[in-house]
Amino acid sequence: MTAQKFVLDPRLEADTSELGELDLCKVLLMDDARFPWVVLVPKRADLVEIIDLGSTDLVRLIEEIATASGVLEAATSPHKLNVAALGNVVRQLHVHIIARFENDAVWPAPVWGKGEREPYAPVKRAEFAGKLRAGFGFG
Amino acid sequence: MTAQKFVLDPRLEADTSELGELDLCKVLLMDDARFPWVVLVPKRADLVEIIDLGSTDLVRLIEEIATASGVLEAATSPHKLNVAALGNVVRQLHVHIIARFENDAVWPAPVWGKGEREPYAPVKRAEFAGKLRAGFGFG
Repeated sequence: MTAQKFVLDPRLEADTSELGELDLCKVLLMDDARFPWVVLVPKRADLVEIIDLGSTDLVRLIEEIATASGVLEAATSPHKLNVAALGNVVRQLHVHIIARFENDAVWPAPVWGKGEREPYAPVKRAEFAGKLRAGFGFG
Repeated sequence: MTAQKFVLDPRLEADTSELGELDLCKVLLMDDARFPWVVLVPKRADLVEIIDLGSTDLVRLIEEIATASGVLEAATSPHKLNVAALGNVVRQLHVHIIARFENDAVWPAPVWGKGEREPYAPVKRAEFAGKLRAGFGFG
């Protein structure tokens, strides 16, 4: 058997821009100006469920969820964070961390499948990505 | 300051039946026959976000998410598990673990806010709760 190499699912890649990498996860910014939204993708091949992670990676995942939650909270002061690993459409294991506001486009509903993604204006994307990269301590 | 005591949110209590308790979390069965659905609620007062947990409890949470995922997977052989901490409606920190099937009522959409909850027939609820309790090793 040959070990498979991690490759980011092209649908995740198409909808996001990369902010950087933590020990376990690639950190992506969802390109949707409606919601401040980070996606964590463990850099391991063939993962679908959280329980597919080994015990060390499992702990890393929750630590990186906490890190990303803290960065997003500090950057946006949301009313609530939504954290979710769904994968009904894209099966590659990924975790959404979304800052929610009582006046956002779909509050209090979950964001998935609601309306159309609204890409950031390039200047706004660069500005927000810069703020998040600083929060994560990415160079 | 007086330490607050953990009290299960009455809305979570109303929609679920208790399966048992793990070290950190109360384990609830969502009373919705459309989806095999477990809810974990950390037994700590005043928690809203995952990052409100201390570092020991944070690790316990992901371990208990993995435990519950394994029990639900063994009991139902789903196409996908959905794991989520949302809290837009009920702010008390709780984690949904839901077994999803390609022929379920709302696939591939997330389950929240879709249609009406359909309580189990009592015999079916008791049967499924018994199966899950055995999986968790609850007495």
